[in-house]
Amino acid sequence: MKKFINAVDRVLTESLRGFGAAHSDIVRVQMEPTFVARADAPVKGKVALISGGGSGHEPLHAGFVGRGMLDAACPGQVFTSCTPDQMAAAAQAVDGGAGVLFIVKNYAGDVMNFEMAADMIGGDQATVITNDDVAVEDSTYTTGRRGVAGTVVVEKMVGAAADKGADLAACKALGERVNKATRSMGVALTSCTVPAAGRPTFQLGEDEIEMGVGIHGEPGRKRVKLESADAIANTLMHAIETDLKPKAGAPALLLVNGFGGTPLMELYLMYDAARRYCEGRNIKVARSLVGNYTTSLEMAGCSLTLTALDDELTKLWDHPVRTAALRWGV
Amino acid sequence: MKKFINAVDRVLTESLRGFGAAHSDIVRVQMEPTFVARADAPVKGKVALISGGGSGHEPLHAGFVGRGMLDAACPGQVFTSCTPDQMAAAAQAVDGGAGVLFIVKNYAGDVMNFEMAADMIGGDQATVITNDDVAVEDSTYTTGRRGVAGTVVVEKMVGAAADKGADLAACKALGERVNKATRSMGVALTSCTVPAAGRPTFQLGEDEIEMGVGIHGEPGRKRVKLESADAIANTLMHAIETDLKPKAGAPALLLVNGFGGTPLMELYLMYDAARRYCEGRNIKVARSLVGNYTTSLEMAGCSLTLTALDDELTKLWDHPVRTAALRWGV
Repeated sequence: MKKFINAVDRVLTESLRGFGAAHSDIVRVQMEPTFVARADAPVKGKVALISGGGSGHEPLHAGFVGRGMLDAACPGQVFTSCTPDQMAAAAQAVDGGAGVLFIVKNYAGDVMNFEMAADMIGGDQATVITNDDVAVEDSTYTTGRRGVAGTVVVEKMVGAAADKGADLAACKALGERVNKATRSMGVALTSCTVPAAGRPTFQLGEDEIEMGVGIHGEPGRKRVKLESADAIANTLMHAIETDLKPKAGAPALLLVNGFGGTPLMELYLMYDAARRYCEGRNIKVARSLVGNYTTSLEMAGCSLTLTALDDELTKLWDHPVRTAALRWGV
Repeated sequence: MKKFINAVDRVLTESLRGFGAAHSDIVRVQMEPTFVARADAPVKGKVALISGGGSGHEPLHAGFVGRGMLDAACPGQVFTSCTPDQMAAAAQAVDGGAGVLFIVKNYAGDVMNFEMAADMIGGDQATVITNDDVAVEDSTYTTGRRGVAGTVVVEKMVGAAADKGADLAACKALGERVNKATRSMGVALTSCTVPAAGRPTFQLGEDEIEMGVGIHGEPGRKRVKLESADAIANTLMHAIETDLKPKAGAPALLLVNGFGGTPLMELYLMYDAARRYCEGRNIKVARSLVGNYTTSLEMAGCSLTLTALDDELTKLWDHPVRTAALRWGV
């Protein structure tokens, strides 16, 4: 294992300390219990959005804390759920009096821990569970579908609505609507190595790829021989389209998400391939995002995400956002 | 070689086509001769900034085209200089009547080709050559020092000055001043693979790292056993500090630049280590940037860059910028 670390048990705290110092204008990092909050939290009268989960998916979620997105993120150890005390402390720190909405990726540990936190906290709170990954049902850590890069779209759009003054019920309903309008699927070219494990999570042959991989290296639909970028994009997009069933000619957001070890040059090439697929299927790519947003440490690979847009969702996407990893309009 | 590609000879054009489509609000991509220009170019009365060089370092340079930074970027094939006809066509497209400034990383091929372009174009033009890498003198492709991630700082600050109305002579003088105030050094944990070569550029042992590596995988100062993040950061920062000799207590910009294959989590951990070095040496980190900005395809590793700031440079850094890869204040 070749990584920039000092000690396996200090990876998270040292990385978070760096993150907090690099972005002190946007966030405040709290340790024990550990969470990342907006520097200006609590924002009075605004619904507070909190997400979290295992680390190793950076910039998800701490990179999306800031105006127009999350109020707090609770990072667990690498690929390990955060704990209820983190979530409860985060909720207390960022609750502006209009309630707290938890945005939780659908993994058994995360869902259970956020449920426990909700019980601890009481008061006005609600939860949105994201499960945008069409690859498989009932995976290694999941009952139902996994929550993956589409979570970024949910956090962005609900964050915009909360910034504009939507109440807790409206934020929850919107989050569920965006999640339902969003589908993703990923592919791995290599494994990743969890620092505490010290060896690759799984093994792939020299010419093999894992189609439908999860963001922790969970198995996908099938292991196949390396194909062209166009063929890979077509497989992913076809699975997404078949499941989402977008209306002909309707606008969509296309997100090409790198898993951490794939050059930007290849991500834009995959975007080009996915966009050509959309054009051929009368899906209008009205908004785009290309980059590393929901990663799996240094895994080479990417996921494609499609969100069916309407005027409201498009405006929420375009709404100003100021976080470490996503910033426009402000 | 496992990469998202369709054909080796179409990597650049397909990737650029994707880049142009994903960022059509910011850039316009022109093919044959190939360059990326601001969507609103030419900007009348503004000095036009043009950079370029081999691809494979994304987002450098196309990701920095837009308001407050570059007017155009000329991408060559992977790790191969762009050609004079690209530079001349770009200059013609973005010249707003106030002259053209070329920002060129110090590699023999790039310098020669930009000189030829300058001869072809005539008129008001000037060149700034960046050579911020303290690792070695007279490297594989270079006489003198290599231009690396510090180029981003030069492009940002000169871009801000041009946006504020500085004339050609002032932009050139500023570019040289920023370059002189900037030092970098990098380290590789793995090699990268150029698509056309199909195999890794160099070989590193399981526990070896290349200290002082270039952004094309050129040899550095020495090959050593893997060390802790703190030890690596100290080696890089010590080399930078010894060369830059920043004034005690003076403000500085600290850039931690990923080479493409290193997770953000580790880059923030390296930032934490570098920042602690600075604190111990009475260097005040006043501005920070952490992420993949000058990459070497999928190489695992990073570089550290320090720029000695003053009030003018700090204001230029903070000036609004709107590009695909760097965006704030607008």
